[in-house]
Amino acid sequence: MDYYAATVEKLIEEFRKMPGVGRKSAQRMAFYVLGLSEEKAGSLVTAICEAKQKVGYCSICCNLTDEQPCKICADLKRDKSLICVVESPQDVVAMEKTGEFKGLYHVLHGVISPMDGVKPEDIRIKELAIRLADNQVKEVIIATNPNIEGEATGSYIARLILPLGIKVTRIAKGIPIGGDIEYADQVTLSKALENRTEIKG
Amino acid sequence: MDYYAATVEKLIEEFRKMPGVGRKSAQRMAFYVLGLSEEKAGSLVTAICEAKQKVGYCSICCNLTDEQPCKICADLKRDKSLICVVESPQDVVAMEKTGEFKGLYHVLHGVISPMDGVKPEDIRIKELAIRLADNQVKEVIIATNPNIEGEATGSYIARLILPLGIKVTRIAKGIPIGGDIEYADQVTLSKALENRTEIKG
Repeated sequence: MDYYAATVEKLIEEFRKMPGVGRKSAQRMAFYVLGLSEEKAGSLVTAICEAKQKVGYCSICCNLTDEQPCKICADLKRDKSLICVVESPQDVVAMEKTGEFKGLYHVLHGVISPMDGVKPEDIRIKELAIRLADNQVKEVIIATNPNIEGEATGSYIARLILPLGIKVTRIAKGIPIGGDIEYADQVTLSKALENRTEIKG
Repeated sequence: MDYYAATVEKLIEEFRKMPGVGRKSAQRMAFYVLGLSEEKAGSLVTAICEAKQKVGYCSICCNLTDEQPCKICADLKRDKSLICVVESPQDVVAMEKTGEFKGLYHVLHGVISPMDGVKPEDIRIKELAIRLADNQVKEVIIATNPNIEGEATGSYIARLILPLGIKVTRIAKGIPIGGDIEYADQVTLSKALENRTEIKG
């Protein structure tokens, strides 16, 4: 039985489909929307519609953008000889927040995963290969997530790029800053040992 | 600095305004919307617009409804001599889920709270008084939340109704089923002692 009016139930169900939103959260969100002024509800609907209409993939790096090319690719101050390959637009944001990376990105929109039926041609690897054709790029940093799929995707891309004579690097794996060696998992700790750096006097 | 395209940031901000939604959740929701098919995004937008257009307050019980009167008020099988007064439409749903209550409801849409500047005339008390004028109602059950504002609102309504010769009751306070006496707070435990019921052999 539906306990709310059908129109309210429909709205709750729509919110419930969103990732990480359970029944209770969806209800709170629906009641929030019902309580909005006409103007504020309009602003929410407009934001959704505009995002759907205007946002697409950057023709160069495949990141989400509402202009072509995206702000980062259009930025003349960025180092075009350096490309950082990431899985998602969220990863670009994480990288940008460090303020350390001045090159360009390439967003794969996924990882190769035979288990989930994701093949190399299902993610934006072809687009990366095309970018490398003009010989401007000197180094590709693989910044996929350090798990099985991320590593496999990184290896696949490396095998593809290395014959072109471009340097390929992988972001470091080790104990996170503020992390606890006591509680670090064995694989991370092994990697941290293996990739130890020399302290120079 | 905005790390996402302006249109995406706008969408994230709109979701972030929702109760219980932080930055990370809002991002996940925005990316979910961006990944929706045209049809599914349309269905979300329609649900919001329809809810805003069609949903209003029941002319009798003030619950949210998309028909007049609401389903519960229109149900001939319900006991019209019994009204349960609750704070919100969510409380109606909680009551309905018990399957125990066969009377009608009255939704106050808030509680009297001098701290927050909510006066008796700001919630749906007048509408309740009007309902009681036709002498059909025999008992009013006060089911506001057992906290300071809920109790004060309950007392206010009781003082208003008692002169009409209508029975006023309050839902029981005590240890919740499955609760732990060891960890019950003192006020609840005192109430549970005070309201003890006799076990008859």
